[in-house]
Amino acid sequence: MTPPALLPSWRPGPTRDAVVGFLAASESLPVETRVAAFDNDGTLWCEKPTYVQFDFFEDALRRRAEADPTLRARPELAAVLDLDMAAIGELGLERVALALAGLFAGIEPDAFTAAARDFAARARHRTRGAPIAGMRYQPMLELLDELRRRDFTIQLVSGGGTEFLRALSADLYGVPPESVVGTQVRYELTRRADGRPVLVRTAGVIGGANEGAAKVQNIQSQLGRQPILAAGNSAGDREMLEWALAGDGPRLALLLHHDDPEREFAYESVSGTRKEREPITDVAARLGWTVVSMARDWARVFPG
Amino acid sequence: MTPPALLPSWRPGPTRDAVVGFLAASESLPVETRVAAFDNDGTLWCEKPTYVQFDFFEDALRRRAEADPTLRARPELAAVLDLDMAAIGELGLERVALALAGLFAGIEPDAFTAAARDFAARARHRTRGAPIAGMRYQPMLELLDELRRRDFTIQLVSGGGTEFLRALSADLYGVPPESVVGTQVRYELTRRADGRPVLVRTAGVIGGANEGAAKVQNIQSQLGRQPILAAGNSAGDREMLEWALAGDGPRLALLLHHDDPEREFAYESVSGTRKEREPITDVAARLGWTVVSMARDWARVFPG
Repeated sequence: MTPPALLPSWRPGPTRDAVVGFLAASESLPVETRVAAFDNDGTLWCEKPTYVQFDFFEDALRRRAEADPTLRARPELAAVLDLDMAAIGELGLERVALALAGLFAGIEPDAFTAAARDFAARARHRTRGAPIAGMRYQPMLELLDELRRRDFTIQLVSGGGTEFLRALSADLYGVPPESVVGTQVRYELTRRADGRPVLVRTAGVIGGANEGAAKVQNIQSQLGRQPILAAGNSAGDREMLEWALAGDGPRLALLLHHDDPEREFAYESVSGTRKEREPITDVAARLGWTVVSMARDWARVFPG
Repeated sequence: MTPPALLPSWRPGPTRDAVVGFLAASESLPVETRVAAFDNDGTLWCEKPTYVQFDFFEDALRRRAEADPTLRARPELAAVLDLDMAAIGELGLERVALALAGLFAGIEPDAFTAAARDFAARARHRTRGAPIAGMRYQPMLELLDELRRRDFTIQLVSGGGTEFLRALSADLYGVPPESVVGTQVRYELTRRADGRPVLVRTAGVIGGANEGAAKVQNIQSQLGRQPILAAGNSAGDREMLEWALAGDGPRLALLLHHDDPEREFAYESVSGTRKEREPITDVAARLGWTVVSMARDWARVFPG
């Protein structure tokens, strides 16, 4: 049997039908409304057992700590050096991420981009040993290609740092830096002794983490267009998926369900407060999202 | 004599030579570094006697004030209704702009975009009576085309509101919304009674006005790439032009000098504090920018 020409890594069934139906329907829309927003970690590539950006920061921290053992004095950094996930959870990932990003305070954007690309070129997945580009999801790469073929603008909307993803987005996904929205470090314009301007990273961020309602507000503030397709995998993507469905015409909210421990991982995000907790697939069922079961809907998970 | 095929509205001379030389040199650069940043008001189109965005707000305010005369009670709005430029200057343009933008608090982004486009379709220049698209500068439109022909990414970096320019940027300049950076209104994600999400404008802004050093910081935060060409006309563009020149390889800082009272207007912006004031053309001479004299360098100012 020859694979279908369209989305060959998607198995036939209702999920693929929903995606193909959306693609066909979108062709009648004005091009400026063809906008698709994708979460990155756990949606376009593997986020387990740790985020790739975490691996990047851990790697940078280990190099620094060799030269400067006093870095261990900060509990956030000690927890990372020890890969003590319980301690990281207690401190809070946001606080740990801020401490890690602070390692790059004072450097220029180009130097940060070079460091991220250097890491991406040599990094291997923590348990599988594959190059990190090999941990992208092949079915999602095919979907990005089909969207681009239909003149969609692709937005990458990540809870991680904007700059790390921007450094890699063109190579990994064919998306230019200006279409990436993440958690934003604050920059400062300073002057050299001779008066020439230098732009440097600070240890602070603008607003908070790009999660939940912030994803919607930041898409509008920074990119200026409401997506008609949104894809995510966690509670932090919930508002973005709801917003993509809020309007007329063809719309699609895709939730990737990690239910494939054989080929990837099995886990699920929980939405809501401590009092009212709801697994994200229950939210999906209630709100009419299209759930992509990795085990059922994908014939193949990784490229190559 | 047939006009030159390249940039036909630019008169032969050192300025045009500098622009043509930069275009030729840029062709050897990696495409991802081909980035050009343009201020809008007074750089890509006429900003005198008032900003087009001011005209838009004034128009909206007059309609509102007919139905609700109490709007006059706010001194910022009364000054606009009276077109009392002295009072506006005393109050401060930033404060007046904030009051005007507040007229649209609570509405959804699409409604704002529709209002801006409706205004742009019927507006006429305050003294010349031309449609506002006719107040763009023909030589700059030709430059944008030549840059695009060389695969440049064009950034629009305005001190005005991001949303107003985004509503018009594709039609006026062929630039998509995500490549526009201006002063940013703050959004809020709210819920309808039935739970559906609604994104609305607030009366607040994120950070301050997009002028001076903020232009550099916001280009990096929101677009993620340093321009190698920057064009501006005022003190608020100074840091952006300095930053575009800070680096190796072909670079160009263009300062448009409004020295043509016959065809447009004659005025000049002054840089610095009250103690140390320096006309922006003096800054240009000192820092090695290319000054575009409208009177001398442009064979034609407006299209059509």
